[in-house]
Amino acid sequence: MAVALNAVPFISVEGMMKLVLRQGLPAFLVDLARCIEADFARWPSFDKTPRLASHSVDGVIELMPASDGELYGFKYVNGHPSNARTGRQTVTAFGVLADVRSGYPVLLSEMTLLTALRTAAMSALAARHLAGPDARGMAIIGNGAQAEFQAVAFRSLLGIEHVRLHDIDPAATEKCARNLRRLGFSLVTCETAEAAVEGADIITTVTADKQFATILTDNMVGPGVHINAVGGDCPGKTELHRDILLRSDIFVEYAPQTRIEGEIQQLDADHPVTELWQVINGNAPGRTDRAQITLFDSVGFAIEDFAALRHVRGLIGEAPFDPPLDLLADPDDPRDLFGMLMRAEARL
Amino acid sequence: MAVALNAVPFISVEGMMKLVLRQGLPAFLVDLARCIEADFARWPSFDKTPRLASHSVDGVIELMPASDGELYGFKYVNGHPSNARTGRQTVTAFGVLADVRSGYPVLLSEMTLLTALRTAAMSALAARHLAGPDARGMAIIGNGAQAEFQAVAFRSLLGIEHVRLHDIDPAATEKCARNLRRLGFSLVTCETAEAAVEGADIITTVTADKQFATILTDNMVGPGVHINAVGGDCPGKTELHRDILLRSDIFVEYAPQTRIEGEIQQLDADHPVTELWQVINGNAPGRTDRAQITLFDSVGFAIEDFAALRHVRGLIGEAPFDPPLDLLADPDDPRDLFGMLMRAEARL
Repeated sequence: MAVALNAVPFISVEGMMKLVLRQGLPAFLVDLARCIEADFARWPSFDKTPRLASHSVDGVIELMPASDGELYGFKYVNGHPSNARTGRQTVTAFGVLADVRSGYPVLLSEMTLLTALRTAAMSALAARHLAGPDARGMAIIGNGAQAEFQAVAFRSLLGIEHVRLHDIDPAATEKCARNLRRLGFSLVTCETAEAAVEGADIITTVTADKQFATILTDNMVGPGVHINAVGGDCPGKTELHRDILLRSDIFVEYAPQTRIEGEIQQLDADHPVTELWQVINGNAPGRTDRAQITLFDSVGFAIEDFAALRHVRGLIGEAPFDPPLDLLADPDDPRDLFGMLMRAEARL
Repeated sequence: MAVALNAVPFISVEGMMKLVLRQGLPAFLVDLARCIEADFARWPSFDKTPRLASHSVDGVIELMPASDGELYGFKYVNGHPSNARTGRQTVTAFGVLADVRSGYPVLLSEMTLLTALRTAAMSALAARHLAGPDARGMAIIGNGAQAEFQAVAFRSLLGIEHVRLHDIDPAATEKCARNLRRLGFSLVTCETAEAAVEGADIITTVTADKQFATILTDNMVGPGVHINAVGGDCPGKTELHRDILLRSDIFVEYAPQTRIEGEIQQLDADHPVTELWQVINGNAPGRTDRAQITLFDSVGFAIEDFAALRHVRGLIGEAPFDPPLDLLADPDDPRDLFGMLMRAEARL
C-alpha cells in the first residue's frame, strides 16, 4: 500500500464490518481459521511471551505481542464483565501490525469484532482437530456477545447445524436464538446447563463472570464429548469442575500462559497438556478414540491476533475503507523533528 | 469529553504540533515537567513493570504500560538507528490512555513528538534536582532528533543559555545549530567530544548507535559535572566508559529496568543507585557537594509517558483538533455484537 511515511492504514469498526460482509461471514471465518492454522503450523518461528496483564477490581487490561521476525503484532484488550451495566462491551480491543525492520506500524485496526471472529475461528479450528468425526450437535453455555460467532464458525468449519443454548439470563438466550434462527440453525433453548448438554457432541462454555464458577460439573460430561472452554481466561476465572479436567485430554494454545489463565490453573503445574500447534503439525495426536473426552482449554493467544491482523491486512489490500491515520512524524529531514515543529508554526 | 461509546479521542501528529505551538514550546515543556514530577511524587501508587521489548537485528519494538489504578496507559515505541537511511525516524511512538474501571481507551495519541518532548522534560527535571545550582553551560553530544528539545527544556527549566554541540556527523551539528541559533542560544559547535565537554557544567549524551560505544571517557569528566545520559537505553547500547560510572553518584528512573537497559548494565547487579522519585519526594539526597559527579542514567520509563498522555489529554479538553476514531464496537444491545454486524448488512 503506497502511503506517506506519516500515515498508518486504519480499519475502523465500520471498516471491519464492511470487510466481513463483503466476503460473507462464513467464508470470512473459514479463511481466518486457515490463516490461524498456517501460523500455528510455523509456531516455533514466533517470538512468544505470555500476555502482560494489568488486573483491577473490575477487570483486566492486557497487551498481547507476538512477532515472526518480519511482522510484529500486538493487541490491546480489556475484559470487564460489569461493563454491560453501562451499555459497554465486556471485551473491547484494537491491534497493530508493524514492520520489524523499521519498527513502523503498518496497520492499526479495531479488534473488538476481530477478536470475536478469531476466537470463534480458533475454537472451530481446534474442534476440527479434536472433536469426533460424527459430531453434529453443540451446546453453547453462555449466550453473550461471543455465542453466535461460535455457532457460525462451527457450522462453517464442521457442519454443526444443531445448537442447544443456555444462559443464566434468559434474555441473552433469546437474543442469541433470534440471531441464529434467522441463519437457519436448528435450535433448542434450555433453562438449565444440564438440559443444554444433553446429547451434545461438543460443549462450548463461554460465560463472562470474573470468578471461579462451575458451569459444568463432572456428571454432565459423557464419553466422547469435546469441550470447548472459552470463558475461563483469567487467573481466578474458570468454568469447569476440576474432576472434568482430570478425565480429559487437555489441549492448550501456549502452556506457559494457559497454566496462569486457563482451566488448568486448577491443576498441578506439571499436569500433562498438549499444545495445539503440535496436533496441527502432526507431531502429537489429537483425538485417539471415540470415548475420549477432549478439552480445548482456550484462553486466546497473541499468535491468533497476529494471524487475524495479517489476514485483514491482506484483505484491505490497496483499497482500505478508512482514510489512514496521521500517526507518525515525517519531517523533511528525518533527523530534524524539531525543525518540523518550528516550521509548522507558520502553517498551523 | 462527550463522545459516543464507539469513539476514541485522537491526537494526530498535526494535532500534537497545534497543541504545543498554541501554548509555545517552553511553556509546554515546563508544564509537562511539572506533570511528570507530580506522577514521580506518587510513585508507589503506580503499577510498574519493566517494558516488554522485542529485539531484532535492526532495532527494538517496545510496549510500556503503567497504571495508577484510575488510568492505564501504554506506549508503543520503536528504536531503529538505521531508519535514517530510508528517510524514517529512529524512534516513532504512539500511546493510549484507558479508564481502568471500564477498560475503554479514552485517548489515542501520536507520541513520536510527545516522546521527544517528555524525554527532554524528564532530563531537565532530573538536572534541576541533580546539577549544581550555578550550572550555566551544557554540552550536547549527539545532535539528532532529540538534541534541540534537550536544549530548549534545559533553558526553560534551568536557564541554560550556553550550549556546546558535537556529533560525529557534522551535518547533524549544523542542523541542530541552525535550529537553536534561531531561538537565541549562545552556541559553540565542536569537532570533537573532548572539545564539546570543555567547561560544561552539564553533559548530555544522546547518540543513537545500537552498540556499546564510548562517547565519554573517564578523563573527559571533571568534578562537579552533571551527566545526563539519554542515548544508552537498550541491552548492549551504552555511551559512557565504565570508569565514569564508578566515580559518579547514579540516579535512575526504575532500577529493575535500568539495570537491563541503562549505562549501569556495565556494573554489578547490586551497585548502589538511587531512584529519582526518592529525590523528588525528599526521601533521598540529590547532589550533596559541589565536586560530586552526578549521573542521570536515563532510559525512559512508562510513568513519564503516562504523565505525558495525561497532560495532553487535559490540554485538548473539550476541543480536540482531530475527529475521534471509530475504534470500539457499540451495538444497540451491548451483548448483541453479532446483531450489530448482521444489521449492518442492510446499511453498508
